[in-house]
Amino acid sequence: NIRNLAMEKVATTVLFPCKYSSGGCTMTLLHTDKTDHEDVCEYRPYCCPCPGASCKWQGSLDAVMMHLLSQHKSITTLQGEDIVFLATDINLPGAVDWVMMQSCFGQSFMLVLEKQEKYDGHQQFYAIVQLIGTRKAAENFAYRLELNGLKRRLTWEATPRSIHDGVQSAIQNSDCLVFDTNIARLFADNGNLGINVTISMCH
Amino acid sequence: NIRNLAMEKVATTVLFPCKYSSGGCTMTLLHTDKTDHEDVCEYRPYCCPCPGASCKWQGSLDAVMMHLLSQHKSITTLQGEDIVFLATDINLPGAVDWVMMQSCFGQSFMLVLEKQEKYDGHQQFYAIVQLIGTRKAAENFAYRLELNGLKRRLTWEATPRSIHDGVQSAIQNSDCLVFDTNIARLFADNGNLGINVTISMCH
Ligand SMILES: [Zn+2]
Ligand SMILES: [Zn+2]
Ligand SMILES: [Zn+2]
Ligand SMILES: [Zn+2]
Repeated sequence: NIRNLAMEKVATTVLFPCKYSSGGCTMTLLHTDKTDHEDVCEYRPYCCPCPGASCKWQGSLDAVMMHLLSQHKSITTLQGEDIVFLATDINLPGAVDWVMMQSCFGQSFMLVLEKQEKYDGHQQFYAIVQLIGTRKAAENFAYRLELNGLKRRLTWEATPRSIHDGVQSAIQNSDCLVFDTNIARLFADNGNLGINVTISMCH
Repeated sequence: NIRNLAMEKVATTVLFPCKYSSGGCTMTLLHTDKTDHEDVCEYRPYCCPCPGASCKWQGSLDAVMMHLLSQHKSITTLQGEDIVFLATDINLPGAVDWVMMQSCFGQSFMLVLEKQEKYDGHQQFYAIVQLIGTRKAAENFAYRLELNGLKRRLTWEATPRSIHDGVQSAIQNSDCLVFDTNIARLFADNGNLGINVTISMCH
């Protein structure tokens, strides 16, 4: 029997501090629970919320907006609960991201439209909203994405993601507004697609 | 020069009766316009509206409901403008159709949910409503399909198709509610998917 009983005993009884204790987390955890906690730890540094993963910035939540304003100057911001996210040239080939900021309720939301080719020759669009804020703060809001066409309307309503989770896993799981190029064509005007975005507070 | 000028002259000046003149169509058309008209001629016989194309029945609009009631007895009918179309066992492999009838405003609507494998290993669901009636009658109505889940909602609103056009071309063009298996899983309960269907009259 090669089981290391001494180490197993440690694993089931000794409490370790969270990897982000220097950031402020005071949790101590069993070895077996440590990774699960650290994945969702509120003290884990925030990554840059811009899609595409080309920016490697990490920092505290307080610093995210400053990072966006200084390093991603091309991102437009619109004020208000109800705005239009206009994606231009949606027929551009390949994987493309469209990004915009929406400012309302004293919060900043990032709107993302991503075009991917998941299946050979079959492009799909994924639209989603994330709050520049914690998971807990995101729970207070709801967003609605709406495509309006000639006697047609496609609507997706959900809770915004927190940028702490990011949008990639939601896109992977289609937990967002998903549509193909045929639908994009039904709602686009001259290659430009307007997505009505409405943010509201939950009660 | 082998162009048959005599025949060309006939084609551009002689009017032919519509193929469905025996059904009541009084249109006469240039040879060049004949096929286009016949594709949309209101006197063209109606085909059986059940998806899958296994039933070869054709007949007049008046006879469609009788055909459905006698030859497709397994199709359930629900009364009311606002009903739930419950599709069971949506995880069944392969191409599957779910069909239901909805009766309201003195009209009968056929609800269709179709699962297809358009791309290798990538199944998609298509949900759509068609009126047992003419194109013109269909224009008087709107339908809404709604998937409701935990803090999520996906909605599609459009004009019902007429069974004269059928649903296949709309499905082909994604001009309906389209969703993938991930989304189906988000909204299904134990493999059963409830789609809220609301029919309304247009003004
Ligand atoms: Zn922690
Ligand atoms: Zn960045
Ligand atoms: Zn005709
Ligand atoms: Zn039939």
